[in-house]
Amino acid sequence: MADWTDCLNFGISVAKRAGEQKEVKLKSSPADLVTETDQRVEKILISAISTRYPQHRFIGEESVAAGERLQLTDSPTWIIDPIDGTVNFVHRFPFVAISIAFAVNKQTEFGIVYSCVEDKLFHAQRGRGAFLNGEPLHVSGQEDISRCVVVTEIGAERDDLALSTLTSNIFRLLKLPVHGVRALGTAAVDMCQVAMGGADAYYHIGMHCWDIAASAIIVREAGGVVTDTDGGWFDVMSRRVIAASSSAVANRIAQVIRPFPCRRDDEEPLQSGGQLTADRKCAGPLMKSDDTNKTH
Amino acid sequence: MADWTDCLNFGISVAKRAGEQKEVKLKSSPADLVTETDQRVEKILISAISTRYPQHRFIGEESVAAGERLQLTDSPTWIIDPIDGTVNFVHRFPFVAISIAFAVNKQTEFGIVYSCVEDKLFHAQRGRGAFLNGEPLHVSGQEDISRCVVVTEIGAERDDLALSTLTSNIFRLLKLPVHGVRALGTAAVDMCQVAMGGADAYYHIGMHCWDIAASAIIVREAGGVVTDTDGGWFDVMSRRVIAASSSAVANRIAQVIRPFPCRRDDEEPLQSGGQLTADRKCAGPLMKSDDTNKTH
Repeated sequence: MADWTDCLNFGISVAKRAGEQKEVKLKSSPADLVTETDQRVEKILISAISTRYPQHRFIGEESVAAGERLQLTDSPTWIIDPIDGTVNFVHRFPFVAISIAFAVNKQTEFGIVYSCVEDKLFHAQRGRGAFLNGEPLHVSGQEDISRCVVVTEIGAERDDLALSTLTSNIFRLLKLPVHGVRALGTAAVDMCQVAMGGADAYYHIGMHCWDIAASAIIVREAGGVVTDTDGGWFDVMSRRVIAASSSAVANRIAQVIRPFPCRRDDEEPLQSGGQLTADRKCAGPLMKSDDTNKTH
Repeated sequence: MADWTDCLNFGISVAKRAGEQKEVKLKSSPADLVTETDQRVEKILISAISTRYPQHRFIGEESVAAGERLQLTDSPTWIIDPIDGTVNFVHRFPFVAISIAFAVNKQTEFGIVYSCVEDKLFHAQRGRGAFLNGEPLHVSGQEDISRCVVVTEIGAERDDLALSTLTSNIFRLLKLPVHGVRALGTAAVDMCQVAMGGADAYYHIGMHCWDIAASAIIVREAGGVVTDTDGGWFDVMSRRVIAASSSAVANRIAQVIRPFPCRRDDEEPLQSGGQLTADRKCAGPLMKSDDTNKTH
């Protein structure tokens, strides 16, 4: 088995260096802000990594925004979100992260989440545990949904069906009950709360592979479980995730929440007026027929 | 005009000392956890303050839980939440605060919010500005609701009407749209995000006077506005608040959100099986007839 520790350590060093970038320029629409910083940080990361590892491939938010088809192959691939929590970043709401995952043969070998404002560096390597600033991380191990703090994201998806499903999911969780619902504005940091044991579960429909590829392995290596929102196998390209302290909690959330339509990350970009769409909003049909078999 | 700076400085010193208390013992129900730490921290605060200022009165979460009638008089009164964010505290979700406000003639003279895990001390004195760790604070000044990050709390109220109103309020805000909705699990820290300019607004129905009395003056002294959820005069006992970066944003939120019934903090405690209710859940009739005149 190849040891990717050298790549991990290099990834950590470039994440910390890139975290020093601060300048912001607001450019775009309310729900999906794009900053020059996003692009600059991604360039810094990819330039540094590709100089050191010229054979490696990249999947990055900004490359996709530029219209490239997104495909995870068997080649060593770095999956990069230069700023997870762009809205937070623009507003200076104090949670933003650089998220870097590394996959070989479509399996994630390590993940790095650098929460820049807090100066917290989370990382995990397959089979070797998860760490925060070098200290081992463990999920809470909670198995009782009624004693859970649940984290989710509120505001990335805006069509009526997505919004009404999103808010009714929160309603149903609170009725179980759960202890509370939290939202920090970055999927990567939200999921790291589960890895730390501060929260017991995170779920989301509509985020992208670069938002959660790194934190998914961090949660698993901290002893947690990561599944699809239907409770099945987690597919990093599906834009649906539950990360939880235990299988019991993940399954209970999967029973309660309802899905809404969401295009996969690896679908062909939609054509729109002759232009490739800059982002990949939830717009497609339901992906899995077994969604309808769930008991709600 | 009396100068309460001596009281303010004493309050800051006891908040910092009390913030060192860490031990947690889970005692109670999912939605309204009570910890021994809550009681111990309140005792430490009240004991220290009453030794120094024996004539002063107190309003505290734990005293009310013990069945005392809550009344804000003209006497110098310390309004204390020993741990704002008790659920977070029990779960070690990283936001908990000690909140201390001081009122004379029913007017808040100063407020202190010590966010213990972050080690951030917010304070404001009437007419003298708001500060974070000694540095001046300013709200964002944002006037356009569609460019706002809005913070609220999700999970303190659990009856069906409160929950459905709460989730439909989030739906309507996202439809405006707003940039995003966040929830940290402590009203005091949520409101301090508005004072810092990291968020542009906070609203909540159902919190208590001790959760927000201190952060309300911090938001105002940082240049923000604090109103009732109907856009009218803020009454610290009403359990309804909007804190915003501008009047325009506060008014827009007041137009959009709907209220749900909530007993005032200064109503007689409900009798329940011969016992005074330990907390003051939302249970009464709508307080203001003009709620129904709002345009939604």
